[in-house]
Amino acid sequence: MAGSNFGTLFKLTSFGESHGIALGGVIDGMPANIEIDFEAIQLELDRRRPGQSDLVSPRKEKDVVEFLSGFFDGKSTGTPIGFIIKNDDQHSKDYENIKDSFRPSHADYTYAEKYGIRDYRGGGRSSARETVARVVAGALAKQVLNHLDIRFSTYVCQVGSISLEQLGFYPKELIEASLVRCPNESSANSMIQLIEQTRSEGDTIGGVIACCVENVPAGIGEPVFDKLHAELGKAMLSINAVKGFEIGSGFAAAAMKGSEHNDLFNADGSTKSNHSGGIQGGISNGMPIQFKVAFKPVASILQNQEMLTNDGALKASEIKGRHDACVVPRAVPIVEAMAAMVILDFYLRNKSVHL
Amino acid sequence: MAGSNFGTLFKLTSFGESHGIALGGVIDGMPANIEIDFEAIQLELDRRRPGQSDLVSPRKEKDVVEFLSGFFDGKSTGTPIGFIIKNDDQHSKDYENIKDSFRPSHADYTYAEKYGIRDYRGGGRSSARETVARVVAGALAKQVLNHLDIRFSTYVCQVGSISLEQLGFYPKELIEASLVRCPNESSANSMIQLIEQTRSEGDTIGGVIACCVENVPAGIGEPVFDKLHAELGKAMLSINAVKGFEIGSGFAAAAMKGSEHNDLFNADGSTKSNHSGGIQGGISNGMPIQFKVAFKPVASILQNQEMLTNDGALKASEIKGRHDACVVPRAVPIVEAMAAMVILDFYLRNKSVHL
Amino acid sequence: MAGSNFGTLFKLTSFGESHGIALGGVIDGMPANIEIDFEAIQLELDRRRPGQSDLVSPRKEKDVVEFLSGFFDGKSTGTPIGFIIKNDDQHSKDYENIKDSFRPSHADYTYAEKYGIRDYRGGGRSSARETVARVVAGALAKQVLNHLDIRFSTYVCQVGSISLEQLGFYPKELIEASLVRCPNESSANSMIQLIEQTRSEGDTIGGVIACCVENVPAGIGEPVFDKLHAELGKAMLSINAVKGFEIGSGFAAAAMKGSEHNDLFNADGSTKSNHSGGIQGGISNGMPIQFKVAFKPVASILQNQEMLTNDGALKASEIKGRHDACVVPRAVPIVEAMAAMVILDFYLRNKSVHL
Amino acid sequence: MAGSNFGTLFKLTSFGESHGIALGGVIDGMPANIEIDFEAIQLELDRRRPGQSDLVSPRKEKDVVEFLSGFFDGKSTGTPIGFIIKNDDQHSKDYENIKDSFRPSHADYTYAEKYGIRDYRGGGRSSARETVARVVAGALAKQVLNHLDIRFSTYVCQVGSISLEQLGFYPKELIEASLVRCPNESSANSMIQLIEQTRSEGDTIGGVIACCVENVPAGIGEPVFDKLHAELGKAMLSINAVKGFEIGSGFAAAAMKGSEHNDLFNADGSTKSNHSGGIQGGISNGMPIQFKVAFKPVASILQNQEMLTNDGALKASEIKGRHDACVVPRAVPIVEAMAAMVILDFYLRNKSVHL
Repeated sequence: MAGSNFGTLFKLTSFGESHGIALGGVIDGMPANIEIDFEAIQLELDRRRPGQSDLVSPRKEKDVVEFLSGFFDGKSTGTPIGFIIKNDDQHSKDYENIKDSFRPSHADYTYAEKYGIRDYRGGGRSSARETVARVVAGALAKQVLNHLDIRFSTYVCQVGSISLEQLGFYPKELIEASLVRCPNESSANSMIQLIEQTRSEGDTIGGVIACCVENVPAGIGEPVFDKLHAELGKAMLSINAVKGFEIGSGFAAAAMKGSEHNDLFNADGSTKSNHSGGIQGGISNGMPIQFKVAFKPVASILQNQEMLTNDGALKASEIKGRHDACVVPRAVPIVEAMAAMVILDFYLRNKSVHL
Repeated sequence: MAGSNFGTLFKLTSFGESHGIALGGVIDGMPANIEIDFEAIQLELDRRRPGQSDLVSPRKEKDVVEFLSGFFDGKSTGTPIGFIIKNDDQHSKDYENIKDSFRPSHADYTYAEKYGIRDYRGGGRSSARETVARVVAGALAKQVLNHLDIRFSTYVCQVGSISLEQLGFYPKELIEASLVRCPNESSANSMIQLIEQTRSEGDTIGGVIACCVENVPAGIGEPVFDKLHAELGKAMLSINAVKGFEIGSGFAAAAMKGSEHNDLFNADGSTKSNHSGGIQGGISNGMPIQFKVAFKPVASILQNQEMLTNDGALKASEIKGRHDACVVPRAVPIVEAMAAMVILDFYLRNKSVHL
Repeated sequence: MAGSNFGTLFKLTSFGESHGIALGGVIDGMPANIEIDFEAIQLELDRRRPGQSDLVSPRKEKDVVEFLSGFFDGKSTGTPIGFIIKNDDQHSKDYENIKDSFRPSHADYTYAEKYGIRDYRGGGRSSARETVARVVAGALAKQVLNHLDIRFSTYVCQVGSISLEQLGFYPKELIEASLVRCPNESSANSMIQLIEQTRSEGDTIGGVIACCVENVPAGIGEPVFDKLHAELGKAMLSINAVKGFEIGSGFAAAAMKGSEHNDLFNADGSTKSNHSGGIQGGISNGMPIQFKVAFKPVASILQNQEMLTNDGALKASEIKGRHDACVVPRAVPIVEAMAAMVILDFYLRNKSVHL
Repeated sequence: MAGSNFGTLFKLTSFGESHGIALGGVIDGMPANIEIDFEAIQLELDRRRPGQSDLVSPRKEKDVVEFLSGFFDGKSTGTPIGFIIKNDDQHSKDYENIKDSFRPSHADYTYAEKYGIRDYRGGGRSSARETVARVVAGALAKQVLNHLDIRFSTYVCQVGSISLEQLGFYPKELIEASLVRCPNESSANSMIQLIEQTRSEGDTIGGVIACCVENVPAGIGEPVFDKLHAELGKAMLSINAVKGFEIGSGFAAAAMKGSEHNDLFNADGSTKSNHSGGIQGGISNGMPIQFKVAFKPVASILQNQEMLTNDGALKASEIKGRHDACVVPRAVPIVEAMAAMVILDFYLRNKSVHL
């Protein structure tokens, strides 16, 4: 109930603060007897890692995952997978100045209001550093889904007001070829330029990530409250800095007529258009699942903004620390990880529909 | 796991098909000893009811809720509340023609793929008629939240491309004064005109609903996976026809800079702007909670569109039945009901943070 | 969280008070496309019903179940099954005298302490009448398990100090041939005599029920916290008046040595003895699952016992109402229903172990 | 669903195998701002530790708990508590001989049937070594309950056929003064003698643990499925080697009459007897909560017993490893830990009954 669990049959429970000893988690419900590529998991963490390029936070975390249980002879045993990622680059002193103050648009104030105590170092539990555990669980989920040929294409489709015109399933190579993880070279270059410009001003900028999942069989998802896209939405909105979620046509649907929005069938059950985003009535229809996730600009800007102190004063103070000017390039593997966890969880849930 | 439950401490379990004997549900976790205004619950159902005005579906359901348990001497006892709403206007014959066919952009095909059997009458369980149970539970939640002075303002802010400029907390009287539940008279009139025009063409149109919740105390919401806005997002995306969700700045945040997006504090802990939508790090900050929900146009259009048959043929066939040309006016009480359930649930969850 | 749900993938949510309008529930997670024998469900309710013989409570409930959803053309659709059982023999006046008093060893006092309000008529929600919903859900679970050849033998093995020597799998005919549901005729006769004697004294007597489940495949059950026998234990202890649970050797194991208690293997994986009761490490081993459930004597005796009043006085008062002198004969179908729900739930849970 | 979680609002998720790198867990829902006595937690682990006396397994685990998150300045922050206990005395070679065989009355066979793969070293996940995580979580729960003056007395009340006559609340000093954790010196001595005798024969012996919890306020527990004693029963039955559970009068109730079993009230709401074991209708009544837990003899005996091989042969083979001749002395802190977790969880759940 305290919100550190995600999923039902494939379930991640995570723990850890930005500047504590370690972050980690427990993955329960991993199918048994799956051969694991441990290097592939580390590669996913590397995609999320700060310091991976000039474009992102220079915090120097190696983010090495250590698995403590759940595997035997290189295979999953079906028992819970415990894992930790140690924190080793803890510049806790950077945060002494916010010990008794709340930064604007951070969770400092709300954590203090909720708990009456907070680990102020780097945002504590509210830091996006928490997402390392998601990436580990998602990497495992993707390896399971690989056996079902379910594949993901996740990329940056907007930074500031520069956006990719054409969405769809882009190959991973194209996405990873770009520092900003946008598969279109010219858009990518403009985005990179915008991020660098923004950073030079001590400012930050928002963005949007698109995700497309192919080969999800028809019939996955639960009707009514646990619709597949409702759970995808929750998964995405639970990622730090996310402000919006669209499945298929999204907000554009509001301005459309039924006669243009309806996805007409082909004889094989596929549809001529995909405004539905691959889901009808909360259940996959076999078409690609397509959604978009909006991220706000990082709140930690290197400009002077007033903070609120514990005793109700406003105090001018520059935020220190090592921050991204734009979060979306590093958020791509996080979005993909959460999507993989949801799809695998619902795939497993669907197994109980028939005896 | 089959997705008929919503909530954790305040939990609704619902059942029922569009053309079955009755719909209903069980509400578990209702706080004890709360005096109930049963008429107010029926009024909420009346707001959702078809046939309430010329603008909406002429299906003639009275939608009378019968409570079977959970109350004594007009007060809640803390035990589960069972309730039913009988179906009495079942034009099941209207659906004979889709017995072996799948309507485009309905859930006919996905239910058949998932279950291998479906109640085709009126969409069965996939019908939006299911939302009556949500409205009942939401009405009870609102009565509880009234004791905490938590108040809701939910209204239509867009139909087609006509949209309300100014969002905020509008009084219920203004909203209910309009057939389309838009608090601005001139926008409302344009929306009504557009809906009527669309209906005359046998077509349908999408829309957007805004919700603003005042007086939610700071500190409500769980960090990490069960962020307050993540659960609100799931709640909204679980409503039929919803394609998008935005909290606070939403997708507009993607094009903003940190220096403009950050909500600077006042000395009392409130903020000068509210791009966050009342939630930071998944936890309420005491500012109004503001979100928007996008609805696609109703799939049942009165135009000829090809359906797919069970045996893989495409067949031209007009959809019968009594449908809305625009779903948003009647969806207002549903959005509000889901919001109330989420807020109450998280309010109760928060009680265990401190001994 | 308020405890009105049971199960995870096959889940019952129940509601209703002894003297309210109706009891009922929602069954979520029923596998789809299962042909249902509705008469068989009613027969299970008849086995639990008061007034079925001279031996039990003369309360005259017909206990007819009405299904409101979840079936189509006589088959389960996979969507939630709503059902109600109306109360029609409500002698609420019988309970006027306990309006402001607490009967000894009933839940009157604890409900008042917990909720600050209680429906005193017939014990309200605390009445064993609540178990009708369990019997309905269990009857459905048994029909599903029939397809897997999983079979139950549930019977009375002790009343007072009269006990059945030999436990095992007795045929249903033998069990149902006896008013007391004990498959051994001579033990049954002694038990009946004891119950009648006890009733004539205005007193009540306890008893024990044994349950044996055959053909549960090896591998069902979850390790660690959700061991199969742990969940069976919880299921049984949740039934009114239950004070103890034993799996296999039970408390007798405490006095045994490992060399006698260990179940040695046969070459086919079966075991020469079954002290384990068919479960090792929380997981079924393919042997019959065997457990016993102890029931206390019914608290409602027709003798004068002091009650406690709301304002802290002790008041001599005879309990009215129509009560059983021994609860175990009617509890047999309840024990079996709970066992069936647990086994089906864990059978379904096991499906996600392998991709 | 895979059973590695326990609790709802105060929730433990555990992981780890007997001979893996580490065991550990995540505790979610710890109330915030509680000052922690870390030494007291380690002391609880020491009570469970093998090698603590001549009477128990000589396995030399130091069992040092390392906390990775959830605390700040010595207080709980309300965020999840991650912790690990490293395995350092891994005699994995001891288990080479069971690599392809199943020991009688162990979980080797059932794990193989369920997962198709197993970590055979020391029983892997099925080892009672898993309970270290429970002891850590229980120690934290007890520290929280201390603030409410809720106190535990847990002790051995039976070994083989030697049993303690008088149950009740014994002071911790008396219990811990005895190697066998039985508070009566003469019984304790007989038990110790019996255990040593049994060990000298290469055999093992069962036992019973009693637990008494004082000062639980009236009103804790959920009616119907989540009765307080039902969840206590599940908690106890989930501990390795447990075969039976009794609340209050337990199986003895079966032979009692209502007139003797009923607990008559005193004017202050307490009762003259406590056959109910402190719980009526699933809800605490303010009297001491009393229950008993039966443990089977340890299956690992140092005598020759046939094992079953993977390929269906029976093979005579002595079990190696370092085992207890009687498990109950070391199980005392485990029983107490699980009881504390349940009581705290239900205490927190009860907070949402009233607004």
